Amino acid sequence: MKLVIVVVQDADSTKFLDALVENNFRATKLSSSGGFLKSGNTTLMIGTDDDRVDELLEVIKNNCQNRKKFVSPLSPMGGNVDSYIPYPVEVEVGGATVFVLPVEAFHQF
Amino acid sequence: MKLVIVVVQDADSTKFLDALVENNFRATKLSSSGGFLKSGNTTLMIGTDDDRVDELLEVIKNNCQNRKKFVSPLSPMGGNVDSYIPYPVEVEVGGATVFVLPVEAFHQF
Amino acid sequence: MKLVIVVVQDADSTKFLDALVENNFRATKLSSSGGFLKSGNTTLMIGTDDDRVDELLEVIKNNCQNRKKFVSPLSPMGGNVDSYIPYPVEVEVGGATVFVLPVEAFHQF
Ligand code: NI
Ligand code: NI
Ligand code: NI
Repeated sequence: MKLVIVVVQDADSTKFLDALVENNFRATKLSSSGGFLKSGNTTLMIGTDDDRVDELLEVIKNNCQNRKKFVSPLSPMGGNVDSYIPYPVEVEVGGATVFVLPVEAFHQF
Repeated sequence: MKLVIVVVQDADSTKFLDALVENNFRATKLSSSGGFLKSGNTTLMIGTDDDRVDELLEVIKNNCQNRKKFVSPLSPMGGNVDSYIPYPVEVEVGGATVFVLPVEAFHQF
Repeated sequence: MKLVIVVVQDADSTKFLDALVENNFRATKLSSSGGFLKSGNTTLMIGTDDDRVDELLEVIKNNCQNRKKFVSPLSPMGGNVDSYIPYPVEVEVGGATVFVLPVEAFHQF
């Protein structure tokens, strides 16, 4: 048994939770904030058999991997029009931090 | 030292927290949600000496074990009267998921 | 790699988070409550290399250590004037509970 703790961005969490259910993993979601550079994250605790850890890592990678994305900036809304960039800009989204912890005993009552 | 992580249903958490205090365990309560099949749960982190783990498991079992319970359905409140079941129904309540984690070092400052 | 779980009082958490950033540690903040004797606490998960654990413990100690403090009680606000203590009283503040957990694998995606 392992306890896998995964911190993901809020933007990815719904899709990721769906994928966990589809792949028959059970997760508990903890309210979290910070990490210092990223706004809005979610922490999940997932208990899994040792022999499914690699499968779980695949699910995490497929749904949460850090990637670049083009977004259209909002109109300047009363800001400085001179600094308004009228074309899509590339930003980084997603990313997951994963800790695989050993479990000495697991019980369900 | 062990760090015991326990996920219980909200309905059991007050009674369980009282029992922990009575038995001289210290717990920190994390806001949590999900597990996918159960609504409303609470995650507790409990630090304990190795030789009290079995005692703690007893407290968990006595307060949170999954059990059947008869509940009287609410009156249909504007719903379809034909589908209203006027007798108590059996539902499952409670249950606890427990991870016992090894601790390499424990400090209090 | 270690996963260090730290429970601190809310009063110390902003100063402590600043110190973590300054010392180049990354933390995720979980919403927590209880411990039974202390109101208002914060739980932080901090991933760190094995060789920086002692440095992290120093940061915790310097920012969160339990200490005594003199506070001026508020005026009685409609309470019993006879029991009002008009001079500062000594209270305990701060304190940190620290669990250092072994990590079997660490991934970032
Ligand atoms: Ni195992
Ligand atoms: Ni131990
Ligand atoms: Ni290590």
